[in-house]
Amino acid sequence: MFEATKVGRSVSKEDFVEQQEELRTQLLEIQRTLAQSKTSVVVIISGVEAAGKGEVVNRLNEWLDTRGVQTFAYWDESDEERERPRYWRFWRSLPPRGSLAILFGGWYLAPIEHRFTGICNDAELDAELNRIVDFERMLIQDGALIVKFWCHLSEKDQKKRLKELSRDDRSRWKMLPDKAKFSEHYSQYESVAERVIRHTDRGISPWYLVEAQDRRYRDLTIGKTLLHAIRSRLSESIPTEPPSTLGIVDLPDSPSAQITLLDQLDLTQTLDRDQYRDEICRLQQEVNELAWGAYKQKRTTVVVFEGVDAGGKGGAIRRITSAIDARLYRSISVAAPTDEEKAHHYLWRFWRHIPRAGYLCFYDRSWYGRVLVERVEGFAKDPEWQRSYAEINQFEEQLVESGVILLKFWLHVSQEEQLRRFKEREAVAYKKYKITDEDWRNRDKWPQYKVAINEMVARTSTESATWTLVEGNDKPFARVKVLRTLCDAMKAGLRRQPCTDGVYVPCGNKRLREDTEG
Amino acid sequence: MFEATKVGRSVSKEDFVEQQEELRTQLLEIQRTLAQSKTSVVVIISGVEAAGKGEVVNRLNEWLDTRGVQTFAYWDESDEERERPRYWRFWRSLPPRGSLAILFGGWYLAPIEHRFTGICNDAELDAELNRIVDFERMLIQDGALIVKFWCHLSEKDQKKRLKELSRDDRSRWKMLPDKAKFSEHYSQYESVAERVIRHTDRGISPWYLVEAQDRRYRDLTIGKTLLHAIRSRLSESIPTEPPSTLGIVDLPDSPSAQITLLDQLDLTQTLDRDQYRDEICRLQQEVNELAWGAYKQKRTTVVVFEGVDAGGKGGAIRRITSAIDARLYRSISVAAPTDEEKAHHYLWRFWRHIPRAGYLCFYDRSWYGRVLVERVEGFAKDPEWQRSYAEINQFEEQLVESGVILLKFWLHVSQEEQLRRFKEREAVAYKKYKITDEDWRNRDKWPQYKVAINEMVARTSTESATWTLVEGNDKPFARVKVLRTLCDAMKAGLRRQPCTDGVYVPCGNKRLREDTEG
Repeated sequence: MFEATKVGRSVSKEDFVEQQEELRTQLLEIQRTLAQSKTSVVVIISGVEAAGKGEVVNRLNEWLDTRGVQTFAYWDESDEERERPRYWRFWRSLPPRGSLAILFGGWYLAPIEHRFTGICNDAELDAELNRIVDFERMLIQDGALIVKFWCHLSEKDQKKRLKELSRDDRSRWKMLPDKAKFSEHYSQYESVAERVIRHTDRGISPWYLVEAQDRRYRDLTIGKTLLHAIRSRLSESIPTEPPSTLGIVDLPDSPSAQITLLDQLDLTQTLDRDQYRDEICRLQQEVNELAWGAYKQKRTTVVVFEGVDAGGKGGAIRRITSAIDARLYRSISVAAPTDEEKAHHYLWRFWRHIPRAGYLCFYDRSWYGRVLVERVEGFAKDPEWQRSYAEINQFEEQLVESGVILLKFWLHVSQEEQLRRFKEREAVAYKKYKITDEDWRNRDKWPQYKVAINEMVARTSTESATWTLVEGNDKPFARVKVLRTLCDAMKAGLRRQPCTDGVYVPCGNKRLREDTEG
Repeated sequence: MFEATKVGRSVSKEDFVEQQEELRTQLLEIQRTLAQSKTSVVVIISGVEAAGKGEVVNRLNEWLDTRGVQTFAYWDESDEERERPRYWRFWRSLPPRGSLAILFGGWYLAPIEHRFTGICNDAELDAELNRIVDFERMLIQDGALIVKFWCHLSEKDQKKRLKELSRDDRSRWKMLPDKAKFSEHYSQYESVAERVIRHTDRGISPWYLVEAQDRRYRDLTIGKTLLHAIRSRLSESIPTEPPSTLGIVDLPDSPSAQITLLDQLDLTQTLDRDQYRDEICRLQQEVNELAWGAYKQKRTTVVVFEGVDAGGKGGAIRRITSAIDARLYRSISVAAPTDEEKAHHYLWRFWRHIPRAGYLCFYDRSWYGRVLVERVEGFAKDPEWQRSYAEINQFEEQLVESGVILLKFWLHVSQEEQLRRFKEREAVAYKKYKITDEDWRNRDKWPQYKVAINEMVARTSTESATWTLVEGNDKPFARVKVLRTLCDAMKAGLRRQPCTDGVYVPCGNKRLREDTEG
């Protein structure tokens, strides 16, 4: 694979000076066009040691207008990053639309290093690479351009470069921590790199291999390739792939074929007042203790509340939060996105609120808005909400894998009960603010919502992130069911410890062990 | 001071139920009015141990619409917070306009604890309290309402409450870390609290002392007080105080009385090409080594570049960044604020970019926009930019105190040289994008800018954050001067180590020691 990067290509100083001037002008021009577009550009600079990745990044920063470029390295992990799912730090560094981010190694750094040092095996590496392919596809379909460079050197050239570097007083490389870690096992490193590149070299996000021996050739090549990649991306429409989710069957017209999961709920279930008081009291005490237990074990709990309007989300959340120490939780009500949020993939604003390890986080409405209100109201285009089932599943998989206890509640009431509650809200002073014209409009779209909800539950109730459908007509019954489900999940979750011996837990390999110490 | 909180006030259960309903309705109503306003509300819940601060916070969360409230506690510091100036974590939790934040203790927690445990003395405490007064005034003048509650118990009641709590299985308090730390020295704690409250009880941000013995009385009182505070704030204009900065003298009409600092610059200074090449090469090597040294010592460097249009900011920055490892710096170009940024005090967006310890951060334009373009163009009202000199000085003081090496460059060229550069920019392809109609318009306001610049330098060139005025007509001369000044400041800075024995360094007490190990 790397043969073509060892042929000795070079550029003379005169040619470089001449071409650099033109390239720079064009890069600045395309950057201005980019700034007006909805495209964001992620540039990943990877490669073997001593190939000059730092020099390349500096050169790009020199050529580009820095007012639209951010550079990120991932060598200095903070505890805020460590205490969240691994990809949080990448989400944090994704550029807003119209701008560029240059990433040192990006999401490729850890997999390569971990395979090379034996922290993971080939199968685990491949699982992680699958995740990367999904991640990149998701960003690209949202309008991002991902340009990945691999700077390569032959073993002989690398050795020579390392020798030069160690002699050169001015070298930045000399001061880098962990230098020359990989170069002693050149062929082994090359073979890991090849596996990674082959696996993640997709049509929509190709790798560009660059011979790094001659610095002028290397930089000009990267600059020109980047220019052309941005240019062609801006003149084309976004590459699309059909969403790889379950197909939708066509329902026969018979009413018995049209029933949904929601029709199967027994909404007549109730709980009498005394039983309710006893149960809620016991469960509130329990959830408070569990919250402190989770804090001590540094386990995060994320609870999603979705449901029909007036389904009782707020009341259910309040029954939990009033029992838990306010220092331990955050409750997030999802409203319209800010302009910073709109400049990113729709999941960005949910990633940004993922709490540090040990805390609880309650979402009053969530990322499921994409396949509910945005679908029904037409705010998201068909391919957008259709592909988001898979995106949501991958997002939740990452949460669970990182040790998050994840619960999702759907609070359901019948159409009649909803009407009763709407009318009650209009009558009671402090509830009046909860009812708007929009609620009445949504109510007219009950059938469309029913289809959307059914599909949402079917497609996103995965093994690790099951939906709990809550029969909500009787508030006491619903609240106790929510609290009990939460307590049970936390109890079960706290018995299982996330494995901490590896730096990262590759995809599909949930290293959880039963806690035997009780 | 606390006598009035030990008189045994209480509210019966029936009264509570009745009044709660009404209070809740009114709180929800005022919250909706607030959401449409430009006011943000900061609620601080402080008090003696076992006074039920957590209960109060939970109660407020129960009463209020959570879709406009965030709660913050400050007991669990992350390294991202530890590695930045202390107030970074408070800036992080300030609510955007239209919403509330409830803070456990807020910025009062540390000073009280540190004085109580003897980490600081009375003078240091007072210095910190002065900073708090300034900080709160700044927020209030920007439209914030700060409501501070102190929940108090008599020594006897506190002892009783603690005994009850330790018996009660359900108590959240029981699970709190560090419980009952202060209660063993009741009167000593009370005296520190009194000093803090007296010092920071200002007309524009008063303390409310609340008897906490009876829970119903405590919660109702706090709820009602909060309601009235928000209500009267929304119906009044922002309280203002005249900015406490230097007065502006009236200049006599004679030309020799009108000269500014800028007129004193010798813009004829030049550097010949050979000298330039030698110097820049040496200094670039040096700054690279210093950047790594700063990284190892975990010292942050913040460099501000301001200057006239076409003054050479970009070129000067590039001469530095091209020499430093791209992993070590971030360069921030200040553009129009996003809507999230607009929802906060104007300094918020600069605080948010303060780097973690050990990194360099270059600001291409900065918080000085407030007293330059915003002043001259009238984007900021007179009192707004007038009070910002003091706000900026306090901000920079905090940076320096926390160990940041801070530099501020003003790059100046003559009006003739500016004209030459403007024309050159219009002629050279890759420079064309740098010149806009706005630049020409700004040029017409040269006299107004000159006055603004002169006042800015005079008022913000403090001992710890001096302006370096750079004679910019000759680019080589300017670039070398910038690089040399930076290197000298970093060298001097790295010799001095911030003191790390205290958890916090109180205001005005720069605990720096000369590093004797070389």
